[in-house]
Amino acid sequence: MNQELTVGQLSEGQLIARFAPLLAEQSAASGESAESYQILGPGDDCAVVAAPDGRFVISTDTQVQGQDFALVWPSGVRSSGFDTGHKCATQNVADAAAMGAVPSSLVVSLTLPKNTPVRWVEDLARGLRAGTLACQAPQCHVVGGDLGAGGEISVTATVTGDLQGRDPVRRNGARPGDQVVLAGTVGRAAAGLDLLLDPALELGRDPQLDALVNSQLRPVSPTPWGARLAQSGATSMIDASDGLVRDLTRVATASGVEIVLNREALEELAQPLRPAGEILGQDPLHWVLNGGEDHGLLSTVPADRQLPAGVLRLGSVRAECTAATGVTHTERIWLEQTPVSQLPLGLRGRGWDHFESEDGF
Amino acid sequence: MNQELTVGQLSEGQLIARFAPLLAEQSAASGESAESYQILGPGDDCAVVAAPDGRFVISTDTQVQGQDFALVWPSGVRSSGFDTGHKCATQNVADAAAMGAVPSSLVVSLTLPKNTPVRWVEDLARGLRAGTLACQAPQCHVVGGDLGAGGEISVTATVTGDLQGRDPVRRNGARPGDQVVLAGTVGRAAAGLDLLLDPALELGRDPQLDALVNSQLRPVSPTPWGARLAQSGATSMIDASDGLVRDLTRVATASGVEIVLNREALEELAQPLRPAGEILGQDPLHWVLNGGEDHGLLSTVPADRQLPAGVLRLGSVRAECTAATGVTHTERIWLEQTPVSQLPLGLRGRGWDHFESEDGF
Repeated sequence: MNQELTVGQLSEGQLIARFAPLLAEQSAASGESAESYQILGPGDDCAVVAAPDGRFVISTDTQVQGQDFALVWPSGVRSSGFDTGHKCATQNVADAAAMGAVPSSLVVSLTLPKNTPVRWVEDLARGLRAGTLACQAPQCHVVGGDLGAGGEISVTATVTGDLQGRDPVRRNGARPGDQVVLAGTVGRAAAGLDLLLDPALELGRDPQLDALVNSQLRPVSPTPWGARLAQSGATSMIDASDGLVRDLTRVATASGVEIVLNREALEELAQPLRPAGEILGQDPLHWVLNGGEDHGLLSTVPADRQLPAGVLRLGSVRAECTAATGVTHTERIWLEQTPVSQLPLGLRGRGWDHFESEDGF
Repeated sequence: MNQELTVGQLSEGQLIARFAPLLAEQSAASGESAESYQILGPGDDCAVVAAPDGRFVISTDTQVQGQDFALVWPSGVRSSGFDTGHKCATQNVADAAAMGAVPSSLVVSLTLPKNTPVRWVEDLARGLRAGTLACQAPQCHVVGGDLGAGGEISVTATVTGDLQGRDPVRRNGARPGDQVVLAGTVGRAAAGLDLLLDPALELGRDPQLDALVNSQLRPVSPTPWGARLAQSGATSMIDASDGLVRDLTRVATASGVEIVLNREALEELAQPLRPAGEILGQDPLHWVLNGGEDHGLLSTVPADRQLPAGVLRLGSVRAECTAATGVTHTERIWLEQTPVSQLPLGLRGRGWDHFESEDGF
């Protein structure tokens, strides 16, 4: 049997020479000709990126093997380098979009054990580019990076974005009366994760289930909606990376409001998750309420704005109901008449705020 | 004995609440009041940073435990979180400076095993700020980050910088006749590394040796020289992170020139390394030629420019001598009449271009 070529057998220069050209390949292949923000690309101490309005947004996200992805999942499915690169791109461009910005560049730092197959790293480069394209951010290129050895695979990307002259859309601007809307999806990646974690399942046979698994492995954020919602007067926005309830709690807390979710809208999101729910014995509404990683965009928009096709109205914002009820963390968010903290156990989230999960600061 | 508090015992929110305030502390303490580029700091999906001239430079660098630093060195010295944070800041701001830019922001992603002491992480935050201040970049704040668990400590920072309306100073602009200059130092961090790696040494007793060890643990890049050299018409610049010869080879190759180093200047740099050289049986010129990680700035400047006090003239640029001699990679750089590839073995670098060492792309 042939030994597969590993990164430890190449010089860093050879590895970079294989990696770098793949970052652009799919862009040409797809015929995308969006204008890049890149002024100077890889090969110097820094890249140079355009910031036409004199500001840029910036955020960083890390994925670590065994924490944020498994090379082999309990179900037997393997995460390819392509998956990891795709997810890395999506996670990052979603953060820029959630400020109402257009993603303008990525830099990527890779830590690789010496036995990592070179093919895995090449796939990662392809996945990075495929991820930005799937998220409709063809203008966002990998403009630079760093490469080093370590005991576990770790992929850190930093994204920048262009506000195009608009104010950044923050978490703290939701106002009573606003509509709560979602661009993209929630819950699908979480359902996919539970499928991946089930050693008894044989995946790859049911297109509906496989689509959910793909949402976990290669999520797609509807990036252009960030700028579109900002243009529509969005008062707040957040990347739903940690789950609908958890992320809306952040918005509600920062804005000093409460959010009331509409059960009908959530049931609409739960519908495509029913087959997975039946197999795993899970109420699909649980995934909708608590599942992150789809990287949908949650936003609040003034009540008088007509919602464009393509976003789903989830509920509305109301003034916080302080003294009388003794508001707690989770009582910021209500499913119609019920605070989410008082939902049946099977619908409540677990471990929202522990070190096991990740968070930005 | 008290068990030390570890990050696994805190929620991520609690850890962030301890970490974030320390990033600013030393700035106030030092009385620095440089204007920050931060428009919006941590706490949202992205930070917002000013880019007054409509562009920014960007670069990223990772340090991994056991690869780029040791928690305990063979000599018994321990790397504190402060050291790791300080070095992280220096490595990154040096990359911005090497483009002729003023560092404008940092984002930092931390991967931490759950048994990492909280104190180590708090020290890292203090070290990050101390590093930017030591590098005279008080305007450069940590504007955001990411926090997650993993099997080994990994610290990735991304730096941005402001070109202040100037063209970026690249590696490819050196011209025959230019002077080769150094701001800061080379060789000290490499001598310090060899001291740290010697299990027979008892460090902490000789201020001269300790100063070298400190150059390895907490290097200081002369960041303002990046912009100053750019203003002086620098034709090329590079952060000397991988060693004088290796980094000048990059400049010479990118520029299509050769560089001739002056032995007297190198001896001047070797002088303070002599005591360490005697103890370790090493010609100190070896560290000067091949030691990186001091994060000095190497630049080429037109011959007619008067060099300001504070930079050292190392040599000069000449046209490449192609066909006749069959130029190889290392023959780009000469120590007076001798190409560095033909220097005595004890002066030549080792393992310049293997995956063991890191490189940007």
